[in-house]
Amino acid sequence: MTYELYYWPMIQGRGEFVRLALEEAGVEYIDVARGKGKNAGIPAMMKLLNGRKVSHASYAPPFLKAGRLLLGQTANILLFIGERHGLAPSDDAGRFWTNQLQLTLADLVAEAHDTHHPVGMGLYYEDQKPESKRRAAEFRKERIPKFLGFFERVLERNSVGARYLVGGKLTYADLSMFQVIEGLRYAFPRYMKKAEKKYPKLVALNLRVKERPRIAAYLTSDRRIPFNEDGIFRRYPELDS
Amino acid sequence: MTYELYYWPMIQGRGEFVRLALEEAGVEYIDVARGKGKNAGIPAMMKLLNGRKVSHASYAPPFLKAGRLLLGQTANILLFIGERHGLAPSDDAGRFWTNQLQLTLADLVAEAHDTHHPVGMGLYYEDQKPESKRRAAEFRKERIPKFLGFFERVLERNSVGARYLVGGKLTYADLSMFQVIEGLRYAFPRYMKKAEKKYPKLVALNLRVKERPRIAAYLTSDRRIPFNEDGIFRRYPELDS
Repeated sequence: MTYELYYWPMIQGRGEFVRLALEEAGVEYIDVARGKGKNAGIPAMMKLLNGRKVSHASYAPPFLKAGRLLLGQTANILLFIGERHGLAPSDDAGRFWTNQLQLTLADLVAEAHDTHHPVGMGLYYEDQKPESKRRAAEFRKERIPKFLGFFERVLERNSVGARYLVGGKLTYADLSMFQVIEGLRYAFPRYMKKAEKKYPKLVALNLRVKERPRIAAYLTSDRRIPFNEDGIFRRYPELDS
Repeated sequence: MTYELYYWPMIQGRGEFVRLALEEAGVEYIDVARGKGKNAGIPAMMKLLNGRKVSHASYAPPFLKAGRLLLGQTANILLFIGERHGLAPSDDAGRFWTNQLQLTLADLVAEAHDTHHPVGMGLYYEDQKPESKRRAAEFRKERIPKFLGFFERVLERNSVGARYLVGGKLTYADLSMFQVIEGLRYAFPRYMKKAEKKYPKLVALNLRVKERPRIAAYLTSDRRIPFNEDGIFRRYPELDS
């Protein structure tokens, strides 16, 4: 079965967490909205999002078509991929912990987005610049250290060792953690250059994921969309330290 | 087994979604931080949150102790309760759809919170009032209609009928939907009085949940903390229409 991923074609965004999991799983998938032709592109995505007869339509992209299943919400899609393709433990303690870490990363991602859209997502960044500066300052000073400190401790306290977040094997939470570190480095390069020294285990995990053969191949392919200023992690120098 | 719920004792907040599920499941639980004595109160919660040896410590409350499992993140706790106590279907289509709806409600809840804390959660509401007014106006005009329209359509498209969000039986997503409607009514009474006429199926679902014997008993008990201005849904008249 070929999976169909539906997400905005011009950004990494939340879809990137799903792309990384599909790539690491080594499964066949079509990134539908990036395709051309009759049943591809944004119109194909909109049909499943807004079609009047779609019974499990998502609130927003990303969503994944897996045979007869149509799944939305990033953490929910990853829960599914994790179960199906061995990217999460199958015992209760492990699978709920992986999901919990993913949801905590989702909170971090939402806050990273809000640094450039604090007052409203319907407004342009240019119309909320002073508020963005205030929010980004708090994000750098209070929130990033709290989140990254938490995940560094998760690695420290892993009874099997600090190679992965959950147990002794890679999970989708590790892939997402990799992506979050990449995103923070892109958006806040000056801040992260100094800050990441405090999180040596997270830095090592980031590298460990980056060097996995399938991930390395993906990152250098044209399937990987570069970071840009339409995504979640945006490089606005005035929001960096 | 008696469950132990850990959450801030003075607010409904995100803990309320867990309380509602535990109440409807009819299981025994202790709301630890609301208790008094040696192993209760906020200090007991902080011990599990910040203890150096807690291996699956959560990033933030709520979290649930279920025997040897320690589970954080609201949607993750509900996934667990749903599986264990029949508050979600067990087939793939049903359980992922329930989780997906819960995560969509979590997005709505986060945005409701941001109406009174757009610039930073470390600041007082009083220090971000003009920004709150802008954000709340967008929330009322654009976001609430988009979210509630989505959930009304979920009910309309349920092939078994519009009594519940998923299939023909109550799930934890219905309990959370009930709570979100209650919260929006509390925070935006003038707006909701007019707006909710557009969502007759959601209004009916809210009443259906409210009248369930266990929920009705809970809502009139002192276990239910009243809404207040320290929680997620706050009544600030200047943010209402």
